[in-house]
Amino acid sequence: MNRRMVVYRVGQILELEAVLLLIPLAVAAIYAEWRGVGCFAISAAAAAVLGLLMILIFKPSNNLMYAKEGFSIVTIAWILLSVFGAVPFFISGEIPNAADAFFETVSGFTTTGASLVPDVEKMSHGMLFWRSFTHWMGGMGILVLIMAIVPTDSGRSMHIMRAEMAGPVIGKLVPKIKDTAKILYVIYLGITVLETLFLLAGGMPVFDSIVHALGTAGTGGYGIKGDSIGGYSPYIQWVIAVFMVIFGINFNLYYLILMKKFSAAVKNTELWLFFGMIIVSTAVIAADIYRIYNNVGDSVRHSFFQVTSIMSTTGYSTADFDKWPVLSKDIIFILMFVGGCAGSTAGGLKISRILIMIKTVINDIRQQLHPRSVTSLKIDGKPVDKNTTQRVSTYFILYIFLIVAVFLLISFEPFGFETNLTAAVSCVNNVGPGFGAVGPSGNYSGYSDFSTIVLSFAMLLGRLEIFPMILALNPANWVNKNK
Amino acid sequence: MNRRMVVYRVGQILELEAVLLLIPLAVAAIYAEWRGVGCFAISAAAAAVLGLLMILIFKPSNNLMYAKEGFSIVTIAWILLSVFGAVPFFISGEIPNAADAFFETVSGFTTTGASLVPDVEKMSHGMLFWRSFTHWMGGMGILVLIMAIVPTDSGRSMHIMRAEMAGPVIGKLVPKIKDTAKILYVIYLGITVLETLFLLAGGMPVFDSIVHALGTAGTGGYGIKGDSIGGYSPYIQWVIAVFMVIFGINFNLYYLILMKKFSAAVKNTELWLFFGMIIVSTAVIAADIYRIYNNVGDSVRHSFFQVTSIMSTTGYSTADFDKWPVLSKDIIFILMFVGGCAGSTAGGLKISRILIMIKTVINDIRQQLHPRSVTSLKIDGKPVDKNTTQRVSTYFILYIFLIVAVFLLISFEPFGFETNLTAAVSCVNNVGPGFGAVGPSGNYSGYSDFSTIVLSFAMLLGRLEIFPMILALNPANWVNKNK
Repeated sequence: MNRRMVVYRVGQILELEAVLLLIPLAVAAIYAEWRGVGCFAISAAAAAVLGLLMILIFKPSNNLMYAKEGFSIVTIAWILLSVFGAVPFFISGEIPNAADAFFETVSGFTTTGASLVPDVEKMSHGMLFWRSFTHWMGGMGILVLIMAIVPTDSGRSMHIMRAEMAGPVIGKLVPKIKDTAKILYVIYLGITVLETLFLLAGGMPVFDSIVHALGTAGTGGYGIKGDSIGGYSPYIQWVIAVFMVIFGINFNLYYLILMKKFSAAVKNTELWLFFGMIIVSTAVIAADIYRIYNNVGDSVRHSFFQVTSIMSTTGYSTADFDKWPVLSKDIIFILMFVGGCAGSTAGGLKISRILIMIKTVINDIRQQLHPRSVTSLKIDGKPVDKNTTQRVSTYFILYIFLIVAVFLLISFEPFGFETNLTAAVSCVNNVGPGFGAVGPSGNYSGYSDFSTIVLSFAMLLGRLEIFPMILALNPANWVNKNK
Repeated sequence: MNRRMVVYRVGQILELEAVLLLIPLAVAAIYAEWRGVGCFAISAAAAAVLGLLMILIFKPSNNLMYAKEGFSIVTIAWILLSVFGAVPFFISGEIPNAADAFFETVSGFTTTGASLVPDVEKMSHGMLFWRSFTHWMGGMGILVLIMAIVPTDSGRSMHIMRAEMAGPVIGKLVPKIKDTAKILYVIYLGITVLETLFLLAGGMPVFDSIVHALGTAGTGGYGIKGDSIGGYSPYIQWVIAVFMVIFGINFNLYYLILMKKFSAAVKNTELWLFFGMIIVSTAVIAADIYRIYNNVGDSVRHSFFQVTSIMSTTGYSTADFDKWPVLSKDIIFILMFVGGCAGSTAGGLKISRILIMIKTVINDIRQQLHPRSVTSLKIDGKPVDKNTTQRVSTYFILYIFLIVAVFLLISFEPFGFETNLTAAVSCVNNVGPGFGAVGPSGNYSGYSDFSTIVLSFAMLLGRLEIFPMILALNPANWVNKNK
């Protein structure tokens, strides 16, 4: 493996993080939070110095990058980004435990939004902004951001994009990967600004509007109030719910719409399945919780908000669904696995994977009935190659095994079955809240340092979709210099 | 499809059930339970008459049997066997609700052992025997029994065997399928008798010994006491635990041992994985529950018993594991999915499937690292063909989807998340008990008729491993006469 190049690239990413840390520094300065300013300055300096050393010492002799290198860069970068991102929380004393600060930052970058801060309203503006900003960077991918802005990037970066972007198939929008990254970020930024404007129009304060727009865009879910979005007006709740849907949709569709290819944008099975699941789940849950709210408007709003929040794996809440009737809870539990569309910022399995799995099963049954028939799997009228369908099955196996492993590793904790199982499911799928102690009105602060670290890696594995991390951590890559 | 043949074969199976119903009739007669005798006589007569009509009217013009016919015979036979098997419970008034009686019988034949009889100690001897006897028949398969005893069976019966026996690969022991069926049943009967003798030697009453041996052999789990095996001596508990292990092992191994092929019998990865999982789980749980029992002997015995009971998917219990610490409960929950070895009477996913899935994942990762390398999947040194590994993945997808569907269908019930989820998992895997209201000290009597029927079909789908039932219920088979 081209180890020099891996280290060099990771160094570049740390430089970028150092620059990005200046944004919360500015926010802290605006609010005259001088302690915060100092903490962000130290963190930025630390990232900058280490990054510079890596760049200077490990300048690679060649730019060769294969899958191995791409996966390794993404894995190491995400871990280091989280470590340096955690420094401000830790040294400011706002999250005084190092493992907790790491968890909170991983939860931010992976857009999980699971928090272990007992009282979020006590945090400073700078830290609250940084928390939400990690969602925004992690949502589309910080390495994709580098591709979009660093001019020297080689054409081999497809491996990085494949590792960092979610879904079974990653396509380029335009022939040049750099341009694809640029287009994606422009669309992303545009919709984020649009949401901010809609929130401002509803009378939400500027700071609140920006952090919630960042949190929605990355489908993260860090709020700044103890009751998440529950205290804001119904208008604000509807705006955020609609934007959670928007950020759960494949960004390729927005590009197609920009290119005025409307018919191609609409011919998307995944999109309609996504809408269908939202509508059906919202209707069933609204009917189920009507007995709590005794009001159609409130029932539909709370139902729609929670459904879109869970399906987009954002994790904001307007109501404590842990206290809802069992049918609603069960549906929410299932939706945690589903996730949004591929190519969106949402986590979960992704609807296109579920679609491919359903078609694989149907094809297999057809094959058993007519052994000599040749069946090919098509999505949106286009054939899906055998390699992709097989990898989706393998991914599903690994994904279920990962949830089981995380569940077992944290099961010595004093919480019950329901809390531990939903914590594992919620973290792997980057949702955020679960049931019981980790429900919308609870948080992850009760977990031990060991479980905190386990859940942090569960979130990373879920965000990067398992394979890149396993491939990167394969010792054979690192031991043998000539490979 | 050769529909005449399907009906004809199902008729034969009903005739066999009519004959088998004479055994509990005899038991009822021994205990002078004349009401029971009458009920079994009526049930036997009804099955015999319908079976005879089917045989006489639908005598097929040819014996052609393909996969379709085999799957259809097995599916329809299992449903009808359960319907007629439920008649004695219903007309005797011992289970006064028709849906409940059907559930109890399906639970018997599928060797689940989930009961909704509130007080089992009030049941008559005849009915208790019949309950346990359905486990024994369902364990090895009643159609396999037919193959073993009906002389005219054609060579095409492999499809039936494949549908009724559990595991990813079904091999013939000897060239003739009829002889294979015979050998399996002789081994099965032999070990059942052996267990009965061991139980008798421990001072267990004759009736108790026989029904518990039948229940262990089929890995079913219907007991005759309110506290399952909890009230019997530690000796009895150890005997049953060891035989639960024995019946969770692939029967091919016993044949190899009989043929004195010891080295081939021992070279079986699945077997050692099964033993390994039992030992590790027993050790961890024993350590975890030591604080309850304050005694190494009791902790190990209860741990070993519950682990073997859940892994073999029998469902007997000596302790209420629902009250155990969360780590033990979580391990038990995971073991519910695992099940025993392929080719045993146990349910669950089967260890060989898990083994194949793990190797599939490893192979896929290797392929991603070295795209041009050719990897083949081997179990016990023998290559597993691509078709099998792919079908295992598809099966896993279907299996998880089935659990999700069952969970959602029963989630309007007033029980909590934990009860509903474990009820769905336990029924699909043919285990029996779950947690909460369906835990070892509870039962399924709280479920509505709708959920009772849903769970009945969940058990059938789990026992027949999903594919045969889906293939059989495909309307295209039945609508088009020429297909």
